[in-house]
Amino acid sequence: MVAEVISVGTELLLGQILNTNSQYLAQKLAEVGIDLYFQTTVGDNMERLKMAIDIATKRSDILIFTGGLGPTSDDITKEAVADYFGLSLVMDKDILRKIEMFFKHRNVKMPEINKKQAYVPEGAKVLHNKNGTAPGFIIEKGSKIAILLPGPPFEMQPMFEEEVLPYLEKFSKQKIYSRVLKFVGIGESSIEEALKDLILSQTDPTMALYAKPFEVELRITTKKENEKVAMSLLQSIEDRIRERLGEYIYGIDKQLLEEVVVRLLTQKNLKVSVAESCTGGLICNKLTNVPGASEVFDRGFIVYSNEAKIKLLGVPEQVLKEHGAVSHQTARYMAQGALSNSLAHIALSVTGIAGPGGGSETKPVGLVYIGIATKNSVESFELRFSGDRLKIKEMTSKAALNILRKKIIDY
Amino acid sequence: MVAEVISVGTELLLGQILNTNSQYLAQKLAEVGIDLYFQTTVGDNMERLKMAIDIATKRSDILIFTGGLGPTSDDITKEAVADYFGLSLVMDKDILRKIEMFFKHRNVKMPEINKKQAYVPEGAKVLHNKNGTAPGFIIEKGSKIAILLPGPPFEMQPMFEEEVLPYLEKFSKQKIYSRVLKFVGIGESSIEEALKDLILSQTDPTMALYAKPFEVELRITTKKENEKVAMSLLQSIEDRIRERLGEYIYGIDKQLLEEVVVRLLTQKNLKVSVAESCTGGLICNKLTNVPGASEVFDRGFIVYSNEAKIKLLGVPEQVLKEHGAVSHQTARYMAQGALSNSLAHIALSVTGIAGPGGGSETKPVGLVYIGIATKNSVESFELRFSGDRLKIKEMTSKAALNILRKKIIDY
Repeated sequence: MVAEVISVGTELLLGQILNTNSQYLAQKLAEVGIDLYFQTTVGDNMERLKMAIDIATKRSDILIFTGGLGPTSDDITKEAVADYFGLSLVMDKDILRKIEMFFKHRNVKMPEINKKQAYVPEGAKVLHNKNGTAPGFIIEKGSKIAILLPGPPFEMQPMFEEEVLPYLEKFSKQKIYSRVLKFVGIGESSIEEALKDLILSQTDPTMALYAKPFEVELRITTKKENEKVAMSLLQSIEDRIRERLGEYIYGIDKQLLEEVVVRLLTQKNLKVSVAESCTGGLICNKLTNVPGASEVFDRGFIVYSNEAKIKLLGVPEQVLKEHGAVSHQTARYMAQGALSNSLAHIALSVTGIAGPGGGSETKPVGLVYIGIATKNSVESFELRFSGDRLKIKEMTSKAALNILRKKIIDY
Repeated sequence: MVAEVISVGTELLLGQILNTNSQYLAQKLAEVGIDLYFQTTVGDNMERLKMAIDIATKRSDILIFTGGLGPTSDDITKEAVADYFGLSLVMDKDILRKIEMFFKHRNVKMPEINKKQAYVPEGAKVLHNKNGTAPGFIIEKGSKIAILLPGPPFEMQPMFEEEVLPYLEKFSKQKIYSRVLKFVGIGESSIEEALKDLILSQTDPTMALYAKPFEVELRITTKKENEKVAMSLLQSIEDRIRERLGEYIYGIDKQLLEEVVVRLLTQKNLKVSVAESCTGGLICNKLTNVPGASEVFDRGFIVYSNEAKIKLLGVPEQVLKEHGAVSHQTARYMAQGALSNSLAHIALSVTGIAGPGGGSETKPVGLVYIGIATKNSVESFELRFSGDRLKIKEMTSKAALNILRKKIIDY
């Protein structure tokens, strides 16, 4: 079975949005072992869309469309596919009710034009959209399959993972299996040096390194018919890597640093509180992105002003005057203050200069202090990052979460 | 003249890299006023690449290829195009010398395979690559034009800007100008209904709506020879839209809601404090992403636990018991507490159920209360969202920032 991805939307042809759906679908098809030979992008134009469908049906078996399922008159993917395959569109009362509920929950009257989204190509399997009003569809016609998905990635991806992937899996024998090891606190080239012999000698599985802000991913990939064989191969390579670099590996696959932190806190039945100046809520936000965080995350203090540091955390005015808000001393007082003004067992603090303003020769943009306190200890760390404000915040948050992770492990 | 972009590379079909070249070229073509109706991606496969060339020459005048100009046997774009147009490949000694110099400068002996890159389709204009060894080409054959560019963006983009853009400009008189209006607090279909007559009657400029989580973008686009004419046309349409929906428009082009909020606070010389339960730091994080936020953002209270709501904000225990943490009452007490425990003029609060756990029949996941307090007023709003934890946090943060925006305007 050969698939083809057809992205529909004039905004793509004007370069107004980046087509991330193509990459997402290409990755997923590769993982499930379905060949993809062509990707086509076409605008919201009936004649040219039908031309693309005609070409695709002649060279591919599975046509995966994204975009053009919205309520407006520009949205024509469903109409074009139904017309090309000679299918009529039938009103589906269940879908209509769901769309009406979607608006009702928002206390908004459903606009008349949204009714358009309740029409289904006859015989199509309907795919539920939990993040929007446009349902997706799987249409089987002769030996051809058309899969219609909404354009916005946050609507398309859950629909694809939950309903399309299980459907596609039956068409493929060899699958791609991979495992990602996630490193923090070590650079890409140091990992490469430590694993040089392994990386060079391996043809199956293959290994590839990807550098990200303050972390590195190592992807190990193999293509096998048998899941068990694949998994044991991946495991044996992972074990060999862990022997050498285990201390830097914080997680695997899609695990995020904050998820690992929340899991460790949960396992050890500990609570954390966080005091943030330079990161301004980013660390709290990351921790509270994790379901179940409310059990282990007690509270956060976003103390941008000196007055807030004094009032909420009890940082002595004298310390701020003598050493400055960006200093080892302030970071430690912040951590101690976050500990004593909360129910937490461990408190993390961050103070630094995210830029672009606020830097000086002795305290440049990117200078960051991270503090961590428990009942019996307080420590602080100095770090220097470069980049723009968002990148400095991001790298600082990861460095801080990694310090927290290690403290929990040792607790 | 109609252009078509053909991206060549198996790595694109495996999803290993994101195709940013397509967006870049689409933007540039739009700016220079050349229509783009199709984008095609095809792998490093001679038969399928020729199939793509054949289809493209039948429906487009200018074929722009990226990728497949490297030295390896996988790189076949030049060979495929030359063969399709019946052109032989001729060794170009100037290019060979340049490639040899490229390696010499790096103190590396030129690998034999790089000689392949010195062959030129007969009659082609050679495009200099200042960041790599692969030259590009412009081939004119009958009424068709093929432009071959290297795949890596840092090689392709300078070549395009310096040599291809001036070449293409002669085919187009008109350029594309556009403006984006950013809406919050109103849905895509309600905007469309309110502007139906404008949208339907307009062929120049054109208007298109894009839904994002809790906001909508309306892009107005015109194609003109004269920038001044274009700008005044865009302005007149913007004015007409603002007459009807001005209250929902928070910004234009790339402005973010938090940037608008920080700018408004700065203009009015006001400070804000924020108390977050359900969003867990997301609002503070967004505000502090904006350079200069430290002047207007006083502090934040991330109060996940009831104890934190009581201790840090003075929410009465009785209120939490009677009405629950997720209630109008708690949201209002939180806002008042954030105001009185800070130096802020306005305080914003959020409490809700982000899920996946913690919901009940009367208080389901996605139920959110937003409070806002000033010295003389306190208000609260009930909202209901659906989606996963991150989406509920994201939508809630936007709704809250919009409530804050309106309060600052009225302050």
